[in-house]
Amino acid sequence: MKEVRNLRNIVRDLCDVAGILKKYRQERNGKQMIKAAVLGFGTVGSGVVELFDINRSSVARRVPEGVEVKYILDLREFPGSPYADRVVHDYDIILNDPEIRVICETMGGKEPAFTFSKKALEKGISVCTSNKELVAAHGPELLKIAQEHNCSYLFEASVGGGIPIIRPMNTSLAPEYITQIIGILNGTTNYMMTRMEQEDISFEDVLRQAQDNGYAEKNPEADIEGHDACRKIAILSSLMCGKTVRYEDIPCEGISHISMTDVAYARSMGRAIKLLGISERDEEAGTFYVRTAPYMVPASHPLHGVEDVFNAVFVHGNLVDNVMFYGRGAGKFPTASAVVSDMLDCALNIGQTIPVRWTDEVMQLSDAAQKVERWFVRVDAAEAEKVKALFDGCETVTAPKAPADETAFTTAPMTEAAFAEKIAQLAGVKSTIRLLEA
Amino acid sequence: MKEVRNLRNIVRDLCDVAGILKKYRQERNGKQMIKAAVLGFGTVGSGVVELFDINRSSVARRVPEGVEVKYILDLREFPGSPYADRVVHDYDIILNDPEIRVICETMGGKEPAFTFSKKALEKGISVCTSNKELVAAHGPELLKIAQEHNCSYLFEASVGGGIPIIRPMNTSLAPEYITQIIGILNGTTNYMMTRMEQEDISFEDVLRQAQDNGYAEKNPEADIEGHDACRKIAILSSLMCGKTVRYEDIPCEGISHISMTDVAYARSMGRAIKLLGISERDEEAGTFYVRTAPYMVPASHPLHGVEDVFNAVFVHGNLVDNVMFYGRGAGKFPTASAVVSDMLDCALNIGQTIPVRWTDEVMQLSDAAQKVERWFVRVDAAEAEKVKALFDGCETVTAPKAPADETAFTTAPMTEAAFAEKIAQLAGVKSTIRLLEA
Repeated sequence: MKEVRNLRNIVRDLCDVAGILKKYRQERNGKQMIKAAVLGFGTVGSGVVELFDINRSSVARRVPEGVEVKYILDLREFPGSPYADRVVHDYDIILNDPEIRVICETMGGKEPAFTFSKKALEKGISVCTSNKELVAAHGPELLKIAQEHNCSYLFEASVGGGIPIIRPMNTSLAPEYITQIIGILNGTTNYMMTRMEQEDISFEDVLRQAQDNGYAEKNPEADIEGHDACRKIAILSSLMCGKTVRYEDIPCEGISHISMTDVAYARSMGRAIKLLGISERDEEAGTFYVRTAPYMVPASHPLHGVEDVFNAVFVHGNLVDNVMFYGRGAGKFPTASAVVSDMLDCALNIGQTIPVRWTDEVMQLSDAAQKVERWFVRVDAAEAEKVKALFDGCETVTAPKAPADETAFTTAPMTEAAFAEKIAQLAGVKSTIRLLEA
Repeated sequence: MKEVRNLRNIVRDLCDVAGILKKYRQERNGKQMIKAAVLGFGTVGSGVVELFDINRSSVARRVPEGVEVKYILDLREFPGSPYADRVVHDYDIILNDPEIRVICETMGGKEPAFTFSKKALEKGISVCTSNKELVAAHGPELLKIAQEHNCSYLFEASVGGGIPIIRPMNTSLAPEYITQIIGILNGTTNYMMTRMEQEDISFEDVLRQAQDNGYAEKNPEADIEGHDACRKIAILSSLMCGKTVRYEDIPCEGISHISMTDVAYARSMGRAIKLLGISERDEEAGTFYVRTAPYMVPASHPLHGVEDVFNAVFVHGNLVDNVMFYGRGAGKFPTASAVVSDMLDCALNIGQTIPVRWTDEVMQLSDAAQKVERWFVRVDAAEAEKVKALFDGCETVTAPKAPADETAFTTAPMTEAAFAEKIAQLAGVKSTIRLLEA
């Protein structure tokens, strides 16, 4: 026992020495730049490279040694670019250069991003990414490899673009028992819903507008069907519980069925329709309800005012109460800024792992059908009497210029299963949208 | 030159070894708890001690070794408290116990907090604090001592209570060139302004209400005259520029002159009056305009919806654009949560300094009189013609139930100096309040 204690003390002393060494390196080798590589010279990747030039002095304030992008990996050539001479096509050049200590992975998609990230981490090179698809699918595996090789895998930019949320979840909110996360996690859909609300234009028109502005992809399915938001709430839920919430397990509903009439009703109720990712503790079962769906958000909720391409993440902790993080959820420079913040953290922690507590143990989710919610419903006017019989405590809602042949109401709180059973007995249901509580 | 390179490589290798050692310690000595001490068992200090019990598993997820509060320093005894046996009255007991690696300073005030913090840091013990007065007055000095002794001085809880803002400023936003910070930084005054707006009660009544609720001190001067917000914007401004913005240099105006009539006018303009701390780069002079004052905030600004005791900090960076952090700006557990997040960071970084870039070089502020703003003004109705002559481009404002013997208007943008000169020529000026731009 005494020997164990001695050993402990020796190791502790060595750790203190480690700190001194680190400082020594920083002081003596002030000019020894940290060398980095960027994988994928697309929108975000080029933003990262440009940021190191544009905000050189901000970078130097954080990492006095400085950070330099030595290589850019891309299949293409960029003959006109001032960075053309850094472009390489062979990943091994980067992997085999012992100067490279940090890699920025902005390729997107699972492969070859996964293989490339794994290879770097196995060499002790830290990897920072904006790739939500890869993080949602292989986050814990890559974190484990990083831990084994004394480097870091960081992914601030994978959720909420430029909004600081992943790092605060891992650090600032670490003392908390988090019970709820609600996020506006997709800029495209939030832009569309805001335009529909403010300009009274149809879903189809606003989608065309968003595509013209470059806010929506030509194939907008990942955004408007909620898949993108679903991956992001999966990542946040995983960080909340430390285990893996699989995005495939999350019920996911998009906004393509939302009409101008729904928006008008929401407005007259003092609410706004937003596509939300929601994760809530089911205290009884010790698990979580997770869902992506459009909700009618009341004016009293801090998420109500989050408009256009802005995103926000609302978090409830048992002691800190409500906090919210707001900013641009996408875009070249906001996203690049988030990736670079991770790269600078890695540069300050060469040779050690920045801890992220997320294991590959799968978190079973609660049955979403048992979640208690309130609904807004539009139905054929002929069903008005039946509605009253079926839905105890329902309240009729009106809106200016609402179609005369329909009636609208909100329900009392009930499980989704109970709601589904009742709604199946009504003919001509035009719309059902969940209500977020204040 | 070659020798220097060899030396560099040796040091780099040693640093890598350091990471391995650190991990080794964590793995082998998983049960070796980090021992901490809390200075000051008041509201926040007791919250910190209780948090380690209430959220033990959250703490253990972040710091697998665990963190234990071994001592509580206070002049008083706490006979009924479950923590009574940890209370000591002699600070030397804590300083001389080699097990103590982290100290939480929640004493408030400059002394003895300053001396105690200094002594701990000089021994290599990290200090985490909620003491904005001490941080605003001696932050850079204590940071330097920490740096010299391979430990950390952290102060997340000194601004915005439970809102993660100091750490995001130091880490997430490190790649940014920040051009503007606007904060609702005082819960008491925001609560008062919200109540005046929503319930139509006078400043005096709402102050009494706030005192009854425990939201305002018996001597409310520090809050309502803006001194508290002023210290907080001084800290944020210092982190923004890396130098020291002295709170004594910041023009500071409180809310005690705001009347129900002002609030009614604000409402009719779609604005809300909030006490703000504002810091903006003056690009030409390479310095900053910093100010604490009430502003009329437009509905389109994200700060408009921040009500009651909630606080928020809005930050504009050149690349990330707008971000905002929202939460409870005060209170036992929100503040304790912020202090503990710092303590856990320190526990994970024993023997090294968590960098905070803030030197004691004083940042000269721009002459606030040259700042261009717009104003809201209420003046004797008899002056209406003179107003038009004096204020080019002014716009008349009306409000329901406004006194008949006065006229109100908003000005075009002008420097404070120009505004002061014109306003001095008017008789019976009842109120002047700045307008925040959207």
